[in-house]
Amino acid sequence: MRRSEVDLLFTQAGLTSAALEGTALVVFDVLRWCTTVCHALTRGAGRVIPVGGIAEATRVAANLDRDATLLCGEREARRIEGFHLGNSPREYTREVVQGKTLVMSTSNGTQAVERAAAAQIIALGALVNVSAVARWAAGRREPLLLVCAGTGGRFALEDAVAAGLLVGRLRALAGGLFAFRDAAGAAERLADSHREDLRGMLGQCEHGRTLARLGHADDLAVCGALDTLEVVPLVVEGRIGRPETANGT
Amino acid sequence: MRRSEVDLLFTQAGLTSAALEGTALVVFDVLRWCTTVCHALTRGAGRVIPVGGIAEATRVAANLDRDATLLCGEREARRIEGFHLGNSPREYTREVVQGKTLVMSTSNGTQAVERAAAAQIIALGALVNVSAVARWAAGRREPLLLVCAGTGGRFALEDAVAAGLLVGRLRALAGGLFAFRDAAGAAERLADSHREDLRGMLGQCEHGRTLARLGHADDLAVCGALDTLEVVPLVVEGRIGRPETANGT
Repeated sequence: MRRSEVDLLFTQAGLTSAALEGTALVVFDVLRWCTTVCHALTRGAGRVIPVGGIAEATRVAANLDRDATLLCGEREARRIEGFHLGNSPREYTREVVQGKTLVMSTSNGTQAVERAAAAQIIALGALVNVSAVARWAAGRREPLLLVCAGTGGRFALEDAVAAGLLVGRLRALAGGLFAFRDAAGAAERLADSHREDLRGMLGQCEHGRTLARLGHADDLAVCGALDTLEVVPLVVEGRIGRPETANGT
Repeated sequence: MRRSEVDLLFTQAGLTSAALEGTALVVFDVLRWCTTVCHALTRGAGRVIPVGGIAEATRVAANLDRDATLLCGEREARRIEGFHLGNSPREYTREVVQGKTLVMSTSNGTQAVERAAAAQIIALGALVNVSAVARWAAGRREPLLLVCAGTGGRFALEDAVAAGLLVGRLRALAGGLFAFRDAAGAAERLADSHREDLRGMLGQCEHGRTLARLGHADDLAVCGALDTLEVVPLVVEGRIGRPETANGT
């Protein structure tokens, strides 16, 4: 059997030229969007609609049931003015999100999803669900492309580390089925060098320091809680619906 | 004193949007262009003119003294038809290159230099001269941007490792003068994980395997000979002239 290729982009910059058709993507945005979506779905959110722009998010929400819809997102790590929720996973409690449709626009993660719309399927990856995503990915037969959302178009350490952890878990689960490109192997080694102290890594990386400075230090512990959630958020036709677990249930 | 920023691009994809003015760049193309230029200059080449396109290279050469000019370069690791030399450092002997002007066009390295033309100054980095480049870089006061040329727009392990070795040496030489961005630190850790076996890394990475398959396995040993040359090729106004050593002599 031919082995599926596993490739990786350390920033979104390569996304525009990448061949996405027929590819299964995983977008990593550890701080904080993908973590937040994992929490929202685990706590009963009905669906999530990722949207690149603020005006577009407002327009999408205006066409939905007002009582069952929340406008969510951030720019420069701050809640967008007039939106119900920001981008902290701690805001997304069961009381707030149960049964709701979340229209979300963030600086990096939702942009990556929008740019990757040509992919066959897109999963969202974070530290909280990396093993669940690995089990999901191990069952795919398309080429896999891991995309680090980064921050403002730049490399973000935490996304590369999460993607690298996924590579390691995928190799352990089903390494013989996959051919790992240079970038995937490099991320794996990088993750290996940080695995003993992921919380410390989140505190030291650029975006972690920015969040701490803005008063979101408590989010770092939530985002660094490795493998605490089983959810694999999947973007299908622009919507993240009923979550799949790693077992497909 | 304000510390200069050291940032890094794992592929050329980010180059177009990067702010290059006033920046000192180091372009890494270990396999093989930067290594080849280091060898050519060490063996007495008078100057090197990097050119992106093949037709443009031919045109540039046609305006120069025919007897003192060599057309050099590759596409898909093979010598360009009608050119005097390919891109193997072993072709660039003293007998061949002494006093000559080399007009060079390659698939990745010369493209990166062309795209980075707005930079203040561009140095060429490889494994053979990484310590020399580190000493040169330690004396600069502009922000430093390390650019991995990659292969065909993709991540290439050997370039990231060389760039990461430079970061480590720069930190050891003058770490207090620089602020290292996430990407620079990540490359440093990646390099650390490969430092004990650079030859093995060159044999295993994607482009190393391609070169070996095409009969260039002997080039890998030349390209992996860490810190064997003192030359720091500098691109000034599109030309690489009389080489500077790390001491500026």
